[in-house]
Amino acid sequence: MASPQARPGLPRIRASYRIETPLDPERAAAAMAGEQSSGTFLKLAGETDALRERHAARVESVALLATVDTPSLPGSLTGDAYHRANVTLSWPQENIGASLPNLLATVLGNLTELRELSGIRLTDVELPRDFIEAFPGPQFSIAGTRRLAGVDHGPLIGTIIKPSVGLSPEETADLVRQLIEAGIDFIKDDELIADPPYSPLAERVPAVMRVIEEHAQRTGRKPMYAFNITGDIDEMRQRHDLVRAHGGTCVMASVNWIGMSSLVALRRHAELPIHGHRNGWGLFYRHPQIGIDYRAYQALLRLAGADHLHVNGLGSKFVEADASVIDSARACLTPLLEAPGRDDRALPVFSSAQTVHQAPPTFAALKSTDLIFTCGGGIMGHPDGVAAGCRSLRAAWEATASGVTLEDHARQEPDLSVALRAYQSPFSG
Amino acid sequence: MASPQARPGLPRIRASYRIETPLDPERAAAAMAGEQSSGTFLKLAGETDALRERHAARVESVALLATVDTPSLPGSLTGDAYHRANVTLSWPQENIGASLPNLLATVLGNLTELRELSGIRLTDVELPRDFIEAFPGPQFSIAGTRRLAGVDHGPLIGTIIKPSVGLSPEETADLVRQLIEAGIDFIKDDELIADPPYSPLAERVPAVMRVIEEHAQRTGRKPMYAFNITGDIDEMRQRHDLVRAHGGTCVMASVNWIGMSSLVALRRHAELPIHGHRNGWGLFYRHPQIGIDYRAYQALLRLAGADHLHVNGLGSKFVEADASVIDSARACLTPLLEAPGRDDRALPVFSSAQTVHQAPPTFAALKSTDLIFTCGGGIMGHPDGVAAGCRSLRAAWEATASGVTLEDHARQEPDLSVALRAYQSPFSG
Repeated sequence: MASPQARPGLPRIRASYRIETPLDPERAAAAMAGEQSSGTFLKLAGETDALRERHAARVESVALLATVDTPSLPGSLTGDAYHRANVTLSWPQENIGASLPNLLATVLGNLTELRELSGIRLTDVELPRDFIEAFPGPQFSIAGTRRLAGVDHGPLIGTIIKPSVGLSPEETADLVRQLIEAGIDFIKDDELIADPPYSPLAERVPAVMRVIEEHAQRTGRKPMYAFNITGDIDEMRQRHDLVRAHGGTCVMASVNWIGMSSLVALRRHAELPIHGHRNGWGLFYRHPQIGIDYRAYQALLRLAGADHLHVNGLGSKFVEADASVIDSARACLTPLLEAPGRDDRALPVFSSAQTVHQAPPTFAALKSTDLIFTCGGGIMGHPDGVAAGCRSLRAAWEATASGVTLEDHARQEPDLSVALRAYQSPFSG
Repeated sequence: MASPQARPGLPRIRASYRIETPLDPERAAAAMAGEQSSGTFLKLAGETDALRERHAARVESVALLATVDTPSLPGSLTGDAYHRANVTLSWPQENIGASLPNLLATVLGNLTELRELSGIRLTDVELPRDFIEAFPGPQFSIAGTRRLAGVDHGPLIGTIIKPSVGLSPEETADLVRQLIEAGIDFIKDDELIADPPYSPLAERVPAVMRVIEEHAQRTGRKPMYAFNITGDIDEMRQRHDLVRAHGGTCVMASVNWIGMSSLVALRRHAELPIHGHRNGWGLFYRHPQIGIDYRAYQALLRLAGADHLHVNGLGSKFVEADASVIDSARACLTPLLEAPGRDDRALPVFSSAQTVHQAPPTFAALKSTDLIFTCGGGIMGHPDGVAAGCRSLRAAWEATASGVTLEDHARQEPDLSVALRAYQSPFSG
């Protein structure tokens, strides 16, 4: 999300798109603006000039990109050529007030079905200060998460409970014991397990937290466990309270499936960081000419209250390009609004096939260690065990943050040395 | 959604997909099953045979469709050819319990990002009886909506308040007066207006309902008005109560933006029909090789509690193909579960460029008049006014349902005769 700027007149919401159209892109942009406010072409009885002046969406800019021969998406009007363009529209904030679901109805709504468009992707959203300030935003953000997890510098080294499904509460707690004794900072439930009958949160939370609390009392450090509380909003509030009552320090939700309204409601209730899992996000970015850039969507998820947001990882097993992963992570670390005492950044969560090899390029692109770095095989697969896996990752990030190569640092860090040989780099060769 | 079938063993959730893959489709299907339950390929410490036997997703069927030269979506593994196939997977219901957001995390989740797939579309979902019965489903469905609107046969003839944005509460009420005096059955807010500062529901609801209640007392018939209450869940509950307190008979929400968790919560609170607006749905169907078929998604929206669901319309101004519109509407009218006293069907809502010409093909495809038929220009644009517009549509549907052509019926229905000449058919020529 771009920074809001001071503008004369009523505050306006701006949304940017990459479109494709058989029409003159200016005309397509005008159709978009008309569809999403007062119609431009059809003159209605009640649609006075004063109403249009006050409420109409405006075309702020249109910049032609390229022309292609065939439409990217079916169903559009046909033409001799299809023009791609960057388009920015704006609306008076007064049209919707400060509401995330209604913002989405306005900036996306029926636009995705217009015959004028053979491609439409929402690329960015810029919101007025009033809109941003109407939302609580992340409650814990980076500093609060670090404080709760007891990690004052470097990434939080994390992992995900595997197998994803099927472990009983006691089996989960046993695994948690091994992981935290090995020195891990952060553990999360898989998105495939929330509150199933074979491992209800009412049993899993006390079983896991008993282990974590014992460790905290013995060592003074309390690793963070993100319990997946995804459910209906009343269930989520109740589950949050359960986690809180047992000393837990994080709750997780599948943000795309609970929806904006429930994320906002959970945030207003929560006393713990909210770990936002974006499973299903592939639906929104998988085809380049339809969907939403995460740059735009993560801003809304942060306003709604997510403290941590998944971004995939470099060289991952998934389809997302590395440049897109980095753009997402940078966006999460860019303030929506800068003000004293305010921090509305979210910790980006890197995952999927991450090992020591990902530390240097991730840091080089982000210039930050404010992130959660989750590994499965990258920890468990270390030839010398889980503790060596944790130590090798910490060593890799320490070296990277101090400008030392992994190979150099490995001379004095045997766990890193072993890891470098054990894991193949996805970036070499 | 297909009908649930009796199966031996634990009840299973089944999901069907159309995939595209550079791999042998059987292998791609196995990768999907592994990703979404216990991994099949990586042997983990805690992943016992017993756990896999109990919790693993199963590949139920793979049927090859066609082979194409180029991948539909970027980022996948590459191959000499890309095979399209219908795939059905199943999971024990025990993996998730009865939860809609967690169902989506399981049947979609990370599948949309797998490198094994250059296309993935969820085409159907089949749920066990226990899962279905855990949800309240539509509270009013067809019969309850007809009772409240006072329309015992034929479609509910409806319209949408236009201009979409900018009218004050009093201007909205004035327009409602004209519409109901013209004989309309159903009016809805546009999805672009919910509770904005220029027309807060606290003023719009009383202003509109005063007009409707006066009409009801005078005539004995109370047209249905769907107030757009889209917002955070606590706002929606409060707004629902406001509508109820002023005698309103319907609330509307943008279902894709409030999310499943909030729709379920709204339904559990509601004492009025829920009108489900699916704006943004284009994101999910616009490219044929990525997304969700409405056949699958509408079933989940109905379980969550939607009484009315938008399906676009035949010959509309939008990109959706007519066959897809009809498939959606048929799905809405197919019971999820048949049981005495139960009706979990939703009324399909037809909209966008609808006129008298759409009545015959819509009825021919659906064999039903259980629907809401909303028109803008198709009512307001009638040369003899709004009342004539309403009468012409009612006449068109009466003729159609009795097997009479519009042209024949127009001989004794002058409003229909005028409408047939005034509006161009999108189906002719």
